[in-house]
Amino acid sequence: MSELHGFLPPFTPSGHSAIIPEMPWYYSGTLLTVEYRTDPANVRALLPADIDLAPEDPGAVALIWADWQSCSEGGAELLDPIRSQYLEAFVVVRCAYEGVTYSRCVAIWVTKDFAIARGWFQGYPKKLGSAHVTRIFNRGKASPRLEAGAKLGATLSAYDHRLASAIVTLREPVEKNGFVNGHPMLHNRWMPSIERGKGMTMDQLITMGGVDADLGQAWKGDAELILADSQWDELASILPVKEIIAGYYREVGVTFAGGTLIADRSQPI
Amino acid sequence: MSELHGFLPPFTPSGHSAIIPEMPWYYSGTLLTVEYRTDPANVRALLPADIDLAPEDPGAVALIWADWQSCSEGGAELLDPIRSQYLEAFVVVRCAYEGVTYSRCVAIWVTKDFAIARGWFQGYPKKLGSAHVTRIFNRGKASPRLEAGAKLGATLSAYDHRLASAIVTLREPVEKNGFVNGHPMLHNRWMPSIERGKGMTMDQLITMGGVDADLGQAWKGDAELILADSQWDELASILPVKEIIAGYYREVGVTFAGGTLIADRSQPI
Amino acid sequence: MSELHGFLPPFTPSGHSAIIPEMPWYYSGTLLTVEYRTDPANVRALLPADIDLAPEDPGAVALIWADWQSCSEGGAELLDPIRSQYLEAFVVVRCAYEGVTYSRCVAIWVTKDFAIARGWFQGYPKKLGSAHVTRIFNRGKASPRLEAGAKLGATLSAYDHRLASAIVTLREPVEKNGFVNGHPMLHNRWMPSIERGKGMTMDQLITMGGVDADLGQAWKGDAELILADSQWDELASILPVKEIIAGYYREVGVTFAGGTLIADRSQPI
Amino acid sequence: MSELHGFLPPFTPSGHSAIIPEMPWYYSGTLLTVEYRTDPANVRALLPADIDLAPEDPGAVALIWADWQSCSEGGAELLDPIRSQYLEAFVVVRCAYEGVTYSRCVAIWVTKDFAIARGWFQGYPKKLGSAHVTRIFNRGKASPRLEAGAKLGATLSAYDHRLASAIVTLREPVEKNGFVNGHPMLHNRWMPSIERGKGMTMDQLITMGGVDADLGQAWKGDAELILADSQWDELASILPVKEIIAGYYREVGVTFAGGTLIADRSQPI
Repeated sequence: MSELHGFLPPFTPSGHSAIIPEMPWYYSGTLLTVEYRTDPANVRALLPADIDLAPEDPGAVALIWADWQSCSEGGAELLDPIRSQYLEAFVVVRCAYEGVTYSRCVAIWVTKDFAIARGWFQGYPKKLGSAHVTRIFNRGKASPRLEAGAKLGATLSAYDHRLASAIVTLREPVEKNGFVNGHPMLHNRWMPSIERGKGMTMDQLITMGGVDADLGQAWKGDAELILADSQWDELASILPVKEIIAGYYREVGVTFAGGTLIADRSQPI
Repeated sequence: MSELHGFLPPFTPSGHSAIIPEMPWYYSGTLLTVEYRTDPANVRALLPADIDLAPEDPGAVALIWADWQSCSEGGAELLDPIRSQYLEAFVVVRCAYEGVTYSRCVAIWVTKDFAIARGWFQGYPKKLGSAHVTRIFNRGKASPRLEAGAKLGATLSAYDHRLASAIVTLREPVEKNGFVNGHPMLHNRWMPSIERGKGMTMDQLITMGGVDADLGQAWKGDAELILADSQWDELASILPVKEIIAGYYREVGVTFAGGTLIADRSQPI
Repeated sequence: MSELHGFLPPFTPSGHSAIIPEMPWYYSGTLLTVEYRTDPANVRALLPADIDLAPEDPGAVALIWADWQSCSEGGAELLDPIRSQYLEAFVVVRCAYEGVTYSRCVAIWVTKDFAIARGWFQGYPKKLGSAHVTRIFNRGKASPRLEAGAKLGATLSAYDHRLASAIVTLREPVEKNGFVNGHPMLHNRWMPSIERGKGMTMDQLITMGGVDADLGQAWKGDAELILADSQWDELASILPVKEIIAGYYREVGVTFAGGTLIADRSQPI
Repeated sequence: MSELHGFLPPFTPSGHSAIIPEMPWYYSGTLLTVEYRTDPANVRALLPADIDLAPEDPGAVALIWADWQSCSEGGAELLDPIRSQYLEAFVVVRCAYEGVTYSRCVAIWVTKDFAIARGWFQGYPKKLGSAHVTRIFNRGKASPRLEAGAKLGATLSAYDHRLASAIVTLREPVEKNGFVNGHPMLHNRWMPSIERGKGMTMDQLITMGGVDADLGQAWKGDAELILADSQWDELASILPVKEIIAGYYREVGVTFAGGTLIADRSQPI
């Protein structure tokens, strides 16, 4: 584009209107995770045909609430905080492709449009939703402290339907906040042809992940989780809870600076 | 995809989770339009290099507020109306490509995620925004009637910044509700490579438009329009008002059933 | 107040900051109503001790969705429509006081703060909620028409919990859009003492109603209604549906210009 | 009320529907404060006739952003965090009554209905608004740390009009996070008669304040502040900035357990 600038549209001469600016993108926040097992057939049913179940514990699922502040280079978003803060709730499974184990996001709801845009670029199947997580403050009686016995609630709804409610009770410091979301992501980037019934214009398999992880102390604990469906969203029906593994909490920082193309089946249609 | 269904992700066996279902998509609603002229150089600066200014009145701009109810085949969205109703405010200019005059949307804000998804598929540079338009009811003192002298307000904000405020005073029935948005749309569908700095994976020029237009009586009138910028959105600076042309109001129905690929410069990157 | 102006706080010299301006308040909009019967004991349990059940059909309940545009004298709100448009869903029962039959709102959720403020003044127990109702447009395929067979959906949620979902199928024009909300309202205006445990500073029984009703054609039809509770709101548990009476739709205009004090038990505490 | 329960309406047999439960109410959160001076005549113009300017520094104003998590006894709200978290931005001045110096809130915007309800009970002139404040996380590059040089942004808008934008740059730990909001509050509780033009049914002067303060380290720094008006809200016009005093940040916990009636001029009208 001769004189138009921006990372994603709208493009303008200054580039300031772009829904998201150039990478890298920086994230600071907290992760509340509930890991559970569903029947591996449920995970299999959500994977494209050329992607396999993970070799170990293939029915493991992570439902993760992230309470983020994020910005691009220079940090301008931080000073107009409505543009930098958002929450997301996302569902991750593991899978395998050509012998390598990956994590894969199969559903995700976020609270801001810039997060939708970043996600579509990254192959996350993002929608808008309303997500909330108990915060940990250090003062007063309206907050748990980061200690054994702390109870944290988390909820998700979309189109005014409550889809998930979780309670995690922290028990002890641990090394990692779960294992399901611990691999590089394997995502598809799909965009159908503008011509009806023609198939996929963009059809890519990519991998990506964060860099520069800056990790706080992880905590593990018990978890309760209630899932539901609506006419517009499937959660209880497609990934029902068979057995809770654990709940986790961790403060984290991470940077996203791009991914890697694995396979391209895009067609000029 | 073997057994996954849906028009846009997320894909599931049932297809019910897709952020939008298959076309056709049906729309019923109202359009409030303010047409004005800016310096043609401002329009030129927003067009890719291979797209030309329109041959006549090249500085004409339309800022349109649409108050929509929409659904797909079967109309299930209409019975959970939070899933069918949304507003949008969008900026249209005209342009020319290989000798044909088109309309082109250069900025657009919508209130729901399904509308963002449809727009990204169609090459509309959609963001979330907060849009409002005075409604015309037939009863009581808190509404204009559809008649000469009726005053209709319309506003747009994004990230808590007011970007546009308009007042249209209807004067007389006319044949058309403006001319700027009257051609087939010429849009680009762009998606950068997941690999940083590599260029555009998807880079298409497409044309599209509604079919089955079901048009109410158009009204024309006077218009006032105030535009502003924020750190995240440009409107006053990129398309300043030089001269108001007119304001318009019309109730409309339309169907979208796909478009046509004009040029494809996508690369497997 | 010497030089402070406004109908409700905040008060300023100009009065412009008041959350609501002086009466009269004008309303234009649509009402979608589902009337049903619950056990009269459920209604009785929601009435203060000095208010009786209505003598006829005492278990009748109306759940009403109103899709309003409203303004005060001069209509300034209509030109900044975010300040004039709101939805509300409210539950009305009938009751008797000193031999007179009244309507009484026992629960109500609205979408804007100015509507909360008007309601608190009027003795409506208003909360914020998310309410949606199918709209009737005259063009296109994404809207019912105002005719036999039209299906209208309506929903209510609060704090991300879906509390009510209704579908009304219009069957025939009728004279009235229900009978439960057809009497003057009998409301309490309560405000506890700022001193803990001291009782009610303001404790009034008042009656009020709209004037200058400007009524469109009423329609009657079948109705389906699903109610739910959350931790914060009771609907299914306190007024369960025993038998649906009917659904109704009507476009209406009305003016509110004040009410009448019936009894005052306020105490200077 | 015989068998109806709840602190504020709606009242039900269980009391669970009340928009707010009984005191005490607990708060944990952060306060970002900008203190500045305006012409004392501007403060005088916002005080009722029987309330005087504070004897010292009478033109001092505090604009405070609070990012709260709050709950009542038992803490049930913390596990459905949408019901416990909210932000507010409020404007405090000082005043004097019968020789005692008080703080007084003259404008306040909050993000949830339960906060409106608590405020109306306490004499805060609450409205809904959209408030945002930069958060301080301990990990990653998308957050300042609690240290000299940290930059925190804060914004307020209502009805899609941006009313205030602030940037505070922390410089050093200090003993107190400002002085304007440091006295017991002197508030009026006003409710007009339901009968038009009759005056105030409830007209009380009360004082109140938090107890059990649990204070984090206060920080002081530089501040920039931009105020604006809209048709519905006055800020720039009624309390213009003459001179910035300082910006402050502090994590705090506090409990509210009721106030004290000072004067009652309520009338049974």
